[in-house]
Order: sequence, then C-alpha cells, then structure tokens
Amino acid sequence: MQGLMMDVPMLLSRLIDYAADHHGETEVISRQINGRVERSNWRALRSRSKQLAKSLLAAGFNSDTHFSSLTWNTINHLEVFYGVLGIGSPLHTLNPRLTVNDLCYMIELMADTVCFYDADTQALAEEIDRNTDSIRQWIYLDEGEALPATSLRKYCSLSALKDGVDDQFEWPVFDERDAATVCFTSGTTGRPKGVAYSHRSLTLCAMNMTMVDMYGSARNGELVCAMPIAPIFHANGWMMPFSAPMNGHKLVLPGRDFSSAGVVELMAQEGVTIAGAVPTVWSDIMAKADSSETSLPSLSTALVAGTAIPEKLFDLLEGRGIGVRTTWGMTEVPGATRASLPPTAGETNKADIRKIALSRQGRVGFQADLRIVDEEGNCLTHDGIASGILQVRGPIVAARYVGESEDQAVQWLDTGDIATIYPDSTIQIVDRAKDVIKSGGEWISSPQLEAAAASHPAVNLAAAVAAPHPRWQERPFLLCTLNANQEVSADALRQHMAQTLAKWWLPEDIKFIEEMPLTATGKINKMRLRQLYVQASILEEKG
Amino acid sequence: MQGLMMDVPMLLSRLIDYAADHHGETEVISRQINGRVERSNWRALRSRSKQLAKSLLAAGFNSDTHFSSLTWNTINHLEVFYGVLGIGSPLHTLNPRLTVNDLCYMIELMADTVCFYDADTQALAEEIDRNTDSIRQWIYLDEGEALPATSLRKYCSLSALKDGVDDQFEWPVFDERDAATVCFTSGTTGRPKGVAYSHRSLTLCAMNMTMVDMYGSARNGELVCAMPIAPIFHANGWMMPFSAPMNGHKLVLPGRDFSSAGVVELMAQEGVTIAGAVPTVWSDIMAKADSSETSLPSLSTALVAGTAIPEKLFDLLEGRGIGVRTTWGMTEVPGATRASLPPTAGETNKADIRKIALSRQGRVGFQADLRIVDEEGNCLTHDGIASGILQVRGPIVAARYVGESEDQAVQWLDTGDIATIYPDSTIQIVDRAKDVIKSGGEWISSPQLEAAAASHPAVNLAAAVAAPHPRWQERPFLLCTLNANQEVSADALRQHMAQTLAKWWLPEDIKFIEEMPLTATGKINKMRLRQLYVQASILEEKG
Repeated sequence: MQGLMMDVPMLLSRLIDYAADHHGETEVISRQINGRVERSNWRALRSRSKQLAKSLLAAGFNSDTHFSSLTWNTINHLEVFYGVLGIGSPLHTLNPRLTVNDLCYMIELMADTVCFYDADTQALAEEIDRNTDSIRQWIYLDEGEALPATSLRKYCSLSALKDGVDDQFEWPVFDERDAATVCFTSGTTGRPKGVAYSHRSLTLCAMNMTMVDMYGSARNGELVCAMPIAPIFHANGWMMPFSAPMNGHKLVLPGRDFSSAGVVELMAQEGVTIAGAVPTVWSDIMAKADSSETSLPSLSTALVAGTAIPEKLFDLLEGRGIGVRTTWGMTEVPGATRASLPPTAGETNKADIRKIALSRQGRVGFQADLRIVDEEGNCLTHDGIASGILQVRGPIVAARYVGESEDQAVQWLDTGDIATIYPDSTIQIVDRAKDVIKSGGEWISSPQLEAAAASHPAVNLAAAVAAPHPRWQERPFLLCTLNANQEVSADALRQHMAQTLAKWWLPEDIKFIEEMPLTATGKINKMRLRQLYVQASILEEKG
Repeated sequence: MQGLMMDVPMLLSRLIDYAADHHGETEVISRQINGRVERSNWRALRSRSKQLAKSLLAAGFNSDTHFSSLTWNTINHLEVFYGVLGIGSPLHTLNPRLTVNDLCYMIELMADTVCFYDADTQALAEEIDRNTDSIRQWIYLDEGEALPATSLRKYCSLSALKDGVDDQFEWPVFDERDAATVCFTSGTTGRPKGVAYSHRSLTLCAMNMTMVDMYGSARNGELVCAMPIAPIFHANGWMMPFSAPMNGHKLVLPGRDFSSAGVVELMAQEGVTIAGAVPTVWSDIMAKADSSETSLPSLSTALVAGTAIPEKLFDLLEGRGIGVRTTWGMTEVPGATRASLPPTAGETNKADIRKIALSRQGRVGFQADLRIVDEEGNCLTHDGIASGILQVRGPIVAARYVGESEDQAVQWLDTGDIATIYPDSTIQIVDRAKDVIKSGGEWISSPQLEAAAASHPAVNLAAAVAAPHPRWQERPFLLCTLNANQEVSADALRQHMAQTLAKWWLPEDIKFIEEMPLTATGKINKMRLRQLYVQASILEEKG
C-alpha cells in the first residue's frame, strides 16, 4: 500500500526559504575578500540568491549548465550556493590551493562551463583559462569595486549580470536526487575524486547534524552563532551553510582569512558560540586569544575533527568552559558520527567524557551506518579490540565518484581508515589503509608524490609515507632509490616535483636509501619503511 | 546532473536496527495489560520483531496484507509495529475507545484482514468480528497466560504463531513512500478519516522532532528516558516509538493504564526525564505526585500539546524545575512546530519564555511549512494581528485520506484551525474553523452527534457546539428543536444516541429550544448559537 503523504522533494531551496520566512532577521556575517566585514541576514541572502537565479536563467543558463566556484568563505559564495542550487544546477566548489593541472582536470571531468572567481583567485582563474577551454563564462564576485583588468577570455561581474533583475522568482521543483554541490577529494589513484552530493543527501545530512548529540543543543531563545573554520569548498564547510538556515543560527564566515588573528577577532566581535576546526587551528586560536587578551566569552562549543585532539588542548578548552565535541567524517560522508558519549544510566562522568573525547572519534550516528571488515570483507565484532577497514553506508554517503559508471557504485564505502568499534558504538581510528598523508586537515596523495618523484630521470623507486608533524599532524616523508650512476639532490628533486604538484604537497624531508624494502608480491613495503625510518626517528627524538 | 549518493531508502526497519546495534542495552519498559511492568531493551525488541516478521511471512502473509491492531501502549504493540512495518505491510492502529460501528467502517475501508488484540480488547474484538467479515485472522497478544476462550472465528496467540521460529531474518528493502502506520482522525464529514504515513514521512518526522528546539537536547552520556502519555494509536504516540530508537532513548510505555496513579508510579520508578501529555493529564500527574508524596526528581521536560497550558500549571511545573515546551501538531502532521522561543540575540528572558509558552503553540518548524489564508485562499501576513485558516505543507504532511483518489490530494492541508502567526514565526491558535469538539485531547465530530440526535423521530433540527469544561477543556453541548406535537426527554435522546456513538461522545448538556438560528444561506448559525447559549452561560457563571 502506498503512503498518502505529500510528495514534497527535499530541495535546498526549501532551506533558504525556511530561513528567510522564519528567522529572516538572523544575521549572516562574512569577512569579504577585501577584508571588510559584511553584515547580511537570511532574508537578504534569499533575495540575492533569487536575483542571481533569475539572472542566470535570463542569461541563457539552465539546470543542465555545470557551474563551478573558485572562491572563499564569503556571503557572495553563499549567494552563489543558493542561487545555483536553487535552479537545479550543480555547483562544483574548487579548492584554490590545488594546482592548475588538477583544477583543469576536475573542471574538464565535470564539464564545467561557468566559473565564479574573486579578486584573490583572479590570477589562478587566468592560468586555468590559458590551460582549458571548458569555462565559457567567468563571473567576478565583485565587492563594490570596478571589474579589474584581466586576460580571461569571457567574463563579467556579478553586479553586471544581475543589473536590472529583481528578486521576484519562484524556485523550480525537481528531483531531490539531482546533484547539488560537488566536492573533490584526493584519492589514492593519483587524481582527485569528485563527490556529487544530492539535494536529498545534503538535507538529510544537515538534519542529522542538528539532532540530539550532533551540533544541536536545545535552546530557549539563545542565539546560536556558528562559524566553520574550514573552507566551504571542503566538504561543504562543516555543513554549516545548510544547518544554519535550517535552525535559525547566525552564521559567521572568515572569507579567505584563516589566520588566527583574523579568526579570533571575528569570533570575539560576532559572539561565535560554536565553531568547527582541526586541533592545530584550535591551538592557534587559543594561543592568539591568550596573547592578544581577546576573550571569547560567548564560545561554548569547540567541534573537533580531522585527527585526535591533544590532551593539553582538550584541558585548555574545557578549563575555560568550552565543551569539546569530537566527531568524524570525510568528503564522502560529512559528519558521520555523533559527538557524544553513549546513553548510559547514571551521572555524567567527567573522566569518561575526557577519555572518549581524547581517544575516540564520536559514536555511530543515524543515517550513516559504520562497520569494520577484514581484508576478505568479513564483518568484525564491535568489541573494542578487533580492528579492520572502516566502511560506511547510508543515504548521506557517496555511492561512486564523478566519472564512474553506475556499476562502480558500492554498497558500503571503504573509508580508507582502519578502526576499532567499541561495544558502546564509539569508534577509534587506529591506522590508515590508504596511502594518503593528512596535513593540516587536507589530504596529500602518496601515489601522486611518488609519481612526481619517479618521473625524475635519476630516481628508480620512490615511496612517500606520513611523518608526524607538531603543527600539521603529518607531513610527507619521501624515500627514494636512485638509478645506477645517477645523482640528484633533495632540492633539485623538490624543484622537479614542483612542476606538477601544489607547493604545500612538497616533502620537506627526502631521504635517499640503498634498497627499497618490498613485500612478498613485489610491492613497496610501506609498513617496513615506517618501522625503519619514521618510528626510528621518533624514538631518536624522544631519546 | 544526477547526484551520486547511495540510494538507501528511509525504512523504519533501519531505526530498530540502528537502536539494536548501537544502543541495544538501552531499556524499553512497559506496563503490560496484566499490570506487570515488563523490562526489555532495543536489542531484544529487534529480535522479537524479526521473529514476528519471519513468522508472519511463514504463515502466508506478505507486504500486501493489511494488518491492524486493537491494543494499548505495550512492548507487545511495539513488537507488532516493527515486525509488521519491517516486512513492508501497513499497520492500522485502531482506537479501542471508538464505537464498533466506526471501527468496522475503518477496518473495511482499509480492507484489514489481520488484527492483533489483547486481554483488554477481546470483548470489543468479538463484537467487531460479529459485525464484519473483513478480519480473517485474529492474533492474541498474550503475556504468558493461556489463550482465553473466545467467540472469534479465526484466532491464535502471538506465542503460538512464533513458536519454533528464530530471529534470523533480513529486513526486505522497498520503497520509502510505502505506507507504514495508518491512524484515523475524526473529521467534519461525519466519518473518521485515515492518514497513511509513509516510511519516509515517519523517518523525517522523527528526525525533525529530535533536532535542536524539538524534543532533543544535547547530552553527554545522560540517559534520556521518554514516556508518551497518549496512546500509540493516537498519531503514533508523540512519535516516540520512532524518535526513541533513533536517539538511544530509554522508552517507557504506560500500557492501558493512563490513571495518574499508574503513570506517576511508573515515571518515578523508571526515572522518566521527558514526557508528553495534554494539560489536564499534566495537572492530574502533578496533583497525584503531590498527594502521594511521590517525587519526580528525574523529570526535566514536560511536552505539552492539544490545547493551551493554564498559567497555574505552567508555574507549578516551572517552579519545580520542569521545563515546559508547548508544541502543536495533529494526526495529519504530528509535531509540526518547534517547542521554543525564536533565536534572538541577548539573554534568555524568563518572562518571554512564560508568555510564549502560555499563549503560543510553538514556532514554525522545518519540514512543515505553515501559513494562514483568508476564505478566498489569499495568504495573510505574519504580523501577529491577522488571523486566518492555518494550512500546512511538507514531506511529513498528509496529502489525502485513505479511500480518496489521487486527484483529491491537496498542495496545502487545511488544519481546521484559525490561527495568527507572529513575525517571529510563533503561532497562536485563536479559533476553530471546523465543527469539532476537542474533549481531553480527542476530537468529537459535531456532524456525527447531530446526525445521531436528528435520527430520533421527535427531533427536527440538532446542533452540537463546544462548551468549555474545567477537566476536558471542551464537552459537546447539544441544542435541538422538536417536531410539532412531539416530545422526548434529554435522557431518552441520550439513550437513543448511545446506539451509534461512543459513550464519551454523548453530551451531558442537551437543551431544547424554540427556534434554530439560521444563516442567510439557510445553514444553522453556530456562531449565533454560541453567543446565545454558550457565552451567555459562561457570563452567568462568572457573574
């Protein structure tokens, strides 16, 4: 028997409508590219988004147009989010920190034809424009200034595009499974992989995140003021562009200024109550707040993800009454775990909270089932002892990547992490299955590093492994064997690699070794490499 | 462009799986029909539901079978919920307080062929069985006792049905838009109307209710212990059968014992932290707790709906540190509003909380848009002054009733309430458009009362209106004109009406009048009737 409920699709336009209609005066703040702090609100943002949507359709674009954005966390970017998604087009959010080579690859794979850029990313946009013919229209996100001279072939400003267009516009209705934002993640195959979120998955994900034990806390009129201290192009910026309008949160965006000085100033000024960042960023924020004597009295919750939180930082935050909530997610499934203790009878135990926050990455959440399996795919028990490959499944999880065919869709997504799940359903990431290095919350692909190094004529075999780093958690450590009678210095090799890799990917440490340890099947034995070189050097330092 | 996320349907079996897997030890408690308190947990409940599902399929039933239940808030009932819904069959939850006539009508409209009953409802089941051939299998929800002798034509006990069947069973996967539970509501057309909730709508509704500002509050290991003090067959019992497993809540069910003594005892014993009830029930609970010196130290939140909360009760609850949260919903859209103040800057204002709790029915929530329209369907402004017909729309709202055709589906559902919406999106129900009487949180249909009265040979015209009542909020007040030279006493008329109506529907007050006031179009002028008889008598009492 069919249910007889309304067939209202979960479109993201419903979010901005809800926010505009029911907490329209709640503020949306951002530091713009020019450094100025801009103040807006949900109602004004809807008006701007509708005006943009109407302008895009008038200019001949439609839901078949693939849009991309090369910009930072600003109100302009949010306007582009809701304007583009509102007409049913996908918005591919590009990471300006990547190389021109990778950016062109992603743009062409997505067949993006329109790209939004800003004063900060213009030079990068021009370089992309010289390397691909994909983008047929560039749109400059102006902030009151004249459109700067540019070598771009076809461009206009956002203001010019919207000139004379009003905000009288009804959002179209379409399938909730249509693509909304598209984010790429570094993979192990050498090329970034695109996750195409649907309107359905992002709505469910934002609901999920604002349920009990997630971002949410029950209120009685207090204003929740949320700030993602991560770029929006990075897994949708802690989902806050969607969870904030859904719950009437004030939203504060740092623009492109992620410096601790800039962030602390904005947090204090706007009364941020909850913010999400990786531990190193939290350390910097607290250090800056201390040294500049800027107190953050409104801050009540520190969301932490990306890596385990150091004990010292946890105690510092909690000591100031800022609750720490650790969670786990990835581009393919943002915000998968609940940031809380399991529901057990009895009094809250401070020691338990501390232990779980320090050693676990949250508890299995609804809409994203987690399991661990062995190498043959057999499920392992959740006993806090067995560890295996962490897999995830649910309506908020990617089934396949951009460019993959339907038969490549997976039932359970392999996260690339090795984890233990406890009987209380808290999870602990214990190792990484995939060969990736996580630096400052961003992934660096070892195969890409290795390919770049091995392309140097003197290099025989190259292997990159993660080395612990006090600031970035991890940095790549490159080990190479050389061809007979060939030589290359570390500097020269780095210069060679810089031709194809982003600067921040380049390994500070390169070591030339006599013999590369191999596995029985002839693959490079990275476990042995870590034992021989990484762990040895840690022991040395400790000694 | 299509999104590339997993196509995992939102089925309710995922809820019980999630609960069993991730907070399986969390308790589920109910007072059984025999008065004993039974203790179970989410893992055991899943096992029982799977065993039931497997047994039903083995007995030849399938997803085309329409099941119904004639029972109270017990663990057995929950087992039936998840067992039946898990195989994709609809479960029609019957209200044992209705008449045999109405129950048979609903069973036949739904084409129910299987019905679960219990020791308390057996006599009613037998009467239904004498009046309809629809039910071909009755299943007795036994609690350890032998199956009692019965006149039912085809019956067995739950234990017998499940005998020898294990719980090794995989839930089937089907369309999330398929019907799950079906609840009937009294309408204005004289016959109850059925709402067929889908798996999708119930999942979204339970998520919605446990978001910020809904039932949820952020936890750190504290056990939330939830108790719906309303029958499960009544709009899914505050949605708690679904929101509890989704969030790891302990669930406590009162069985059929809704007496204040029984409820208070269970609340104290099990440490209930949050419960939902109409104001009269809350008044009784607090009075009982006081008189029996049973303290309720764990109770932190009182959910209130159905009607405005009296000032005295609000102050009593808040004075004991029990937060009052008023919300609004109906069978067609359970839990539509957020139980909170709007998000405004600045400190929480106790006076504002009090004012909004006393005069408003919550704030417009996500997934259920609300608007007010005039009689021509024009939207009215949300200025706190204009009042109009309250309409609702969203994926958790009924589009049409059981038995209606697709072209009867509405875009916006008429709630039958007249409301004002304030600029902060709080709503206030100011009057009722439909001719229904709300007695103790349940609807009584005036047209049905009128038809029953008018069927007496002496009665010419009959009109039922709502009269305020200190305990039941409202009771029906019947006004009749008699045919010439005919007479009937109030008692005799009540006896006549008792043949077709439930006892609690019968009006205590019947008044015979000389002339029935009519509108210009010849309809009974109820507004005039209320002015002449209801308001006059209130003024009299006050005088």
